[in-house]
Amino acid sequence: MPGNSFGHVFRLTTWGESHGPGVGCTVDGCPAGLPLAVTDIQHELDRRRVGQSKVSSPRQEADQVQILSGVFEGRTTGAPITLVVFNTDARSGSYEAIKDLYRPGHADYTWDAKYGFRDWRGGGRSSARETIGRVAGGAVAKLLLAQAGVSIVAYTLQLEDLRARVFDEDEIERNIMRCPDAEVAAQMIERVDAARRALDSLGGIVEVRARGVPPGLGEPVFDKLQAEIGKAMFSIPAIKGVEMGEGFAVAGLRGSVNNDPFVRRADGSIGTTSNHHGGILGGISTGEEIVVRLAAKPPASIAQPQQTVDRAGNAATIEVHGRHDPTVLPRLVPIAEAMLALVLADHLLRQRLARVQV
Amino acid sequence: MPGNSFGHVFRLTTWGESHGPGVGCTVDGCPAGLPLAVTDIQHELDRRRVGQSKVSSPRQEADQVQILSGVFEGRTTGAPITLVVFNTDARSGSYEAIKDLYRPGHADYTWDAKYGFRDWRGGGRSSARETIGRVAGGAVAKLLLAQAGVSIVAYTLQLEDLRARVFDEDEIERNIMRCPDAEVAAQMIERVDAARRALDSLGGIVEVRARGVPPGLGEPVFDKLQAEIGKAMFSIPAIKGVEMGEGFAVAGLRGSVNNDPFVRRADGSIGTTSNHHGGILGGISTGEEIVVRLAAKPPASIAQPQQTVDRAGNAATIEVHGRHDPTVLPRLVPIAEAMLALVLADHLLRQRLARVQV
Amino acid sequence: MPGNSFGHVFRLTTWGESHGPGVGCTVDGCPAGLPLAVTDIQHELDRRRVGQSKVSSPRQEADQVQILSGVFEGRTTGAPITLVVFNTDARSGSYEAIKDLYRPGHADYTWDAKYGFRDWRGGGRSSARETIGRVAGGAVAKLLLAQAGVSIVAYTLQLEDLRARVFDEDEIERNIMRCPDAEVAAQMIERVDAARRALDSLGGIVEVRARGVPPGLGEPVFDKLQAEIGKAMFSIPAIKGVEMGEGFAVAGLRGSVNNDPFVRRADGSIGTTSNHHGGILGGISTGEEIVVRLAAKPPASIAQPQQTVDRAGNAATIEVHGRHDPTVLPRLVPIAEAMLALVLADHLLRQRLARVQV
Amino acid sequence: MPGNSFGHVFRLTTWGESHGPGVGCTVDGCPAGLPLAVTDIQHELDRRRVGQSKVSSPRQEADQVQILSGVFEGRTTGAPITLVVFNTDARSGSYEAIKDLYRPGHADYTWDAKYGFRDWRGGGRSSARETIGRVAGGAVAKLLLAQAGVSIVAYTLQLEDLRARVFDEDEIERNIMRCPDAEVAAQMIERVDAARRALDSLGGIVEVRARGVPPGLGEPVFDKLQAEIGKAMFSIPAIKGVEMGEGFAVAGLRGSVNNDPFVRRADGSIGTTSNHHGGILGGISTGEEIVVRLAAKPPASIAQPQQTVDRAGNAATIEVHGRHDPTVLPRLVPIAEAMLALVLADHLLRQRLARVQV
Repeated sequence: MPGNSFGHVFRLTTWGESHGPGVGCTVDGCPAGLPLAVTDIQHELDRRRVGQSKVSSPRQEADQVQILSGVFEGRTTGAPITLVVFNTDARSGSYEAIKDLYRPGHADYTWDAKYGFRDWRGGGRSSARETIGRVAGGAVAKLLLAQAGVSIVAYTLQLEDLRARVFDEDEIERNIMRCPDAEVAAQMIERVDAARRALDSLGGIVEVRARGVPPGLGEPVFDKLQAEIGKAMFSIPAIKGVEMGEGFAVAGLRGSVNNDPFVRRADGSIGTTSNHHGGILGGISTGEEIVVRLAAKPPASIAQPQQTVDRAGNAATIEVHGRHDPTVLPRLVPIAEAMLALVLADHLLRQRLARVQV
Repeated sequence: MPGNSFGHVFRLTTWGESHGPGVGCTVDGCPAGLPLAVTDIQHELDRRRVGQSKVSSPRQEADQVQILSGVFEGRTTGAPITLVVFNTDARSGSYEAIKDLYRPGHADYTWDAKYGFRDWRGGGRSSARETIGRVAGGAVAKLLLAQAGVSIVAYTLQLEDLRARVFDEDEIERNIMRCPDAEVAAQMIERVDAARRALDSLGGIVEVRARGVPPGLGEPVFDKLQAEIGKAMFSIPAIKGVEMGEGFAVAGLRGSVNNDPFVRRADGSIGTTSNHHGGILGGISTGEEIVVRLAAKPPASIAQPQQTVDRAGNAATIEVHGRHDPTVLPRLVPIAEAMLALVLADHLLRQRLARVQV
Repeated sequence: MPGNSFGHVFRLTTWGESHGPGVGCTVDGCPAGLPLAVTDIQHELDRRRVGQSKVSSPRQEADQVQILSGVFEGRTTGAPITLVVFNTDARSGSYEAIKDLYRPGHADYTWDAKYGFRDWRGGGRSSARETIGRVAGGAVAKLLLAQAGVSIVAYTLQLEDLRARVFDEDEIERNIMRCPDAEVAAQMIERVDAARRALDSLGGIVEVRARGVPPGLGEPVFDKLQAEIGKAMFSIPAIKGVEMGEGFAVAGLRGSVNNDPFVRRADGSIGTTSNHHGGILGGISTGEEIVVRLAAKPPASIAQPQQTVDRAGNAATIEVHGRHDPTVLPRLVPIAEAMLALVLADHLLRQRLARVQV
Repeated sequence: MPGNSFGHVFRLTTWGESHGPGVGCTVDGCPAGLPLAVTDIQHELDRRRVGQSKVSSPRQEADQVQILSGVFEGRTTGAPITLVVFNTDARSGSYEAIKDLYRPGHADYTWDAKYGFRDWRGGGRSSARETIGRVAGGAVAKLLLAQAGVSIVAYTLQLEDLRARVFDEDEIERNIMRCPDAEVAAQMIERVDAARRALDSLGGIVEVRARGVPPGLGEPVFDKLQAEIGKAMFSIPAIKGVEMGEGFAVAGLRGSVNNDPFVRRADGSIGTTSNHHGGILGGISTGEEIVVRLAAKPPASIAQPQQTVDRAGNAATIEVHGRHDPTVLPRLVPIAEAMLALVLADHLLRQRLARVQV
């Protein structure tokens, strides 16, 4: 099975390169009858778009999406949904000069090692523009989830050592860092500005939460919900760590503390009094909030001189100029949401298969 | 696609329950001509087996594996390889008493929520005995990898705050914690003993490394090597966090530090002077060592009284007696190796498909 | 994806060789809660078993099936169901003599060409004993279908030029040819006897029907119901042709004749007044009876001298002695039923995914 | 897994509707380094195009294909290849009048039964325009096969009772029936003309052959080469029967006749002296010519009055006017070639996985 598809029954395939004609995706397996308008998708793409603020790359593209198939009279038909964004601001000039050099931290060398050559224009297929297809497909997934009462929110939790201390959900989309703590957001923005001036880049952590997830989602023993989320998140460029619930902190916890007691909630349903587990037990959702954190490395493109080699192995110095983000965090937010939405939509559907006579 | 298979072209399916007739697996897609003996598999199962030491559960089973298919005159034939271990020491008695109670931190509630009922004997399908199939299948994957010069090693890196400071690979299998630091291993063993006496359990971190991985493995953009490893590791029971290379530490690193410079090595190949990236860039192996860390939660089974509910939602107190590990770390070591082996074997084969005229 | 699995969400994997320890299968994706007893499966295996009559091979095996996983207290749990039949009457002697010769019409040469060598004992993996796994898995599928009111029946329609003229369903299991026309069945038996004495073998046609199939099953555009049935049937050893509804006869029909008019049935549902289409239109079931015919070649194993070559390409003469069927038709009947059941069970489940808010 | 993808490692996904913005496909898994030009694809699309002759529908579209991704400097990159044809001559008018009626022989009723509603404009997703994506993807497959010395040719073998008696390969593309027998082709054209005047349509048989297929392709036991071909062919609209080699004629053959003797060929390779088996034994290619025949029903769209019902089940009379083919045979030729090419390209790649140390 080739590697450009994600999901089992709700299946996204993305395609396209940074400087080719366009980027896009096909969603196959979306149930028929889901109301879907181009504005639903455009809204998410606008959130992902670069050129939005001083913490992001100045590449200017409208990223206007078109629906090519699968929708009739405003509803999905059960046929595959193809979405496309044509590239309009692709400038390959700055890449031509370094096309034979391997940018440190980038995929140049490994793509050559794998395929024998590569589309070097703007990173080609390994460009972050590929995530347009993810966000577009994730927008469809979100609509399907909304029908089931599931909502997803992501935000910048931490930039270097600056970590949000307050969680004000309304604040997230108000500041350009997408941080739920206005005060910390302001510090983050300063930090990014300073890094940009220092020709450097910054890492951080994004947190994603899903609410209203019904108990029962996840397919043991290999397609457990956390396994699928793990795959989804690690497939995003720049992600080096993923944790759920207490995450790495479980290393320091005892069972007597980490186990979440079960209780009957007021509405008669069963829940837990704490959420160390992060909404998943035994690979299956419990109904509690799903909590995931992603560690994103500092973007590899920096304008400082770096040591590297060319294709022939000759030592060289490289400076990566161009239109690059000093941090991926704000743009990672909608991408992380999209990936979690894709996993949950897929498993919401798969759960329909779990029992006889459903 | 049901959830009990892992891998794309080298594909493992596990089956079986803790207290059913047996547990096992089928490996489909193993190339023909691989020398395979039952002892190769038994060796790995013996490493996984419980009842090995005072830090593990006292359940006593030989876990003798049989090869039911796919091998002829000592070599794989290209047909599916089925491996089975019959259960011989299954005692359901201690489970019967609590079969209607939801053990905190366990999959009881979620399996009921998903399937409507469950095999409650010893955790049924969600038992750690399921990992026998993984370790058996992983043993086949290891043989395939060995032919390509790839080796894998895992070990206990950390128990609570006790973290190995020395890496002595020969030490790993010498102590019952499988910790590469003999001195810290001794402290860990003491800590486990104390926790057992306190009827409690402990979390920690296992590290896994793969060496000799050729550059080029991994299938962008969704089956990137780190995404597949992430899925593999998160599918292991008790894992709450996974990181590669610098992992979560990238949040605090600048691009100028985190980027690994490329160099030509003495043998003419291309490598990096440091390995912050952990052997994978852009979803594809670089040839540097692959480094993965897993955070394992403290085992959920503890003999202390805990608050919970029964199937009907009535409040109850539960004490989970039986034969349980106070820490999963030493037994997690061969399982983590198996999962990494499965991912790499699969991608070693998939890489054969990357170019025309290979 | 390796080749030993069939189905998408209700997924069968078979394994095992003719003269290895055993043959079996794993069914993954069977919904939880389906009543399943070993006798349900044994019943179908008994129908498939050889040594039943003078028209079949005299190999004597009880083919006793065991359930190794996935069933608890008489019901499926949602976990994979593994079924095994241990081989008890495997005699490799007659094969050793011809292990370097390529039997005409058999898979010896092609398996060598593919894998470099093969398990030559009794055909190894290409033996008809592999179909035990299909029939066992198909028995589970039949139970699932029965819950939805779907039933399947197959029978011998034609042996050489002898074609059933009467359809008496009760007659099918009464005669050893499994032909619904008692008179023609008697002629067929005579014909088989004569062929056996002439050291020859015979081809024919089996017909399979499914009733009670709800409209809506099938997944355009590649997993259309007829495409999935086509694959299923052509995967059975010896099948060289498959047709549905009018089949090849459509070549001679005009649209004005072949189109089936729609009508409202007495119960208010929509149906057609004729069934040239064989229960499928546009890749999706109509609710009319599904009708499929399979052309089976004469078994390749005949005791007459035949020209062939050995592995080195040297010319040789071969006589294939052993325990072989002069016709596969009666044993093909339960296999064809099993394969149709597997397709329909898979698509019955997939149909649950077709619409929002089902 | 949703139903709009075909193939395992060389994987085609088609999308688009007859009267939507366009139709197209994505090919994922094409190896890097294959020379690919838009003209390679356009050539095949031109062969498929309607409006070519008096035996085909007069819908006039250039069907100009664009490559949106996966090609760089004239070669495939290993990234997914997306191909699109925008619809330019879509007239929905004639469909609006009959949008609530179920056309006999069409997919209207079954799509409603499956999805609850349908895009009724020109058949929507069930339109023959969907096959544009197949032919475009098949063109890529053909290029890959050509590198391995594999060629494919299809032609009209039979229209009603008119069957080609001569095989002149050069003749095929010379006459509008694509029949290799010029004399019979002339008779066929007359027959089609008469049927059109009679407001009726005609069935027939197309034959497809593949030459130069290396021995060893095919993945037992479910992805046997004939099973995959069977699925591919039955997924084409209008196909009701598929046979290989002797096909249904095997019903009348004895083993002593049907078995093809093996011989060593002049070049030292192993072959058979006859080809009753049609190039596949045991599910794996033998190296002999692969021979497949498809029975195509008479097109369902005829302008005669037919009895049917509307969505509510009310009896109605329908006449299907519009731009329809009285026979699909000439246009089926490139589609059948494309589907066989897709199967063979997929299995050519899969064969790379069959052995250790390839």
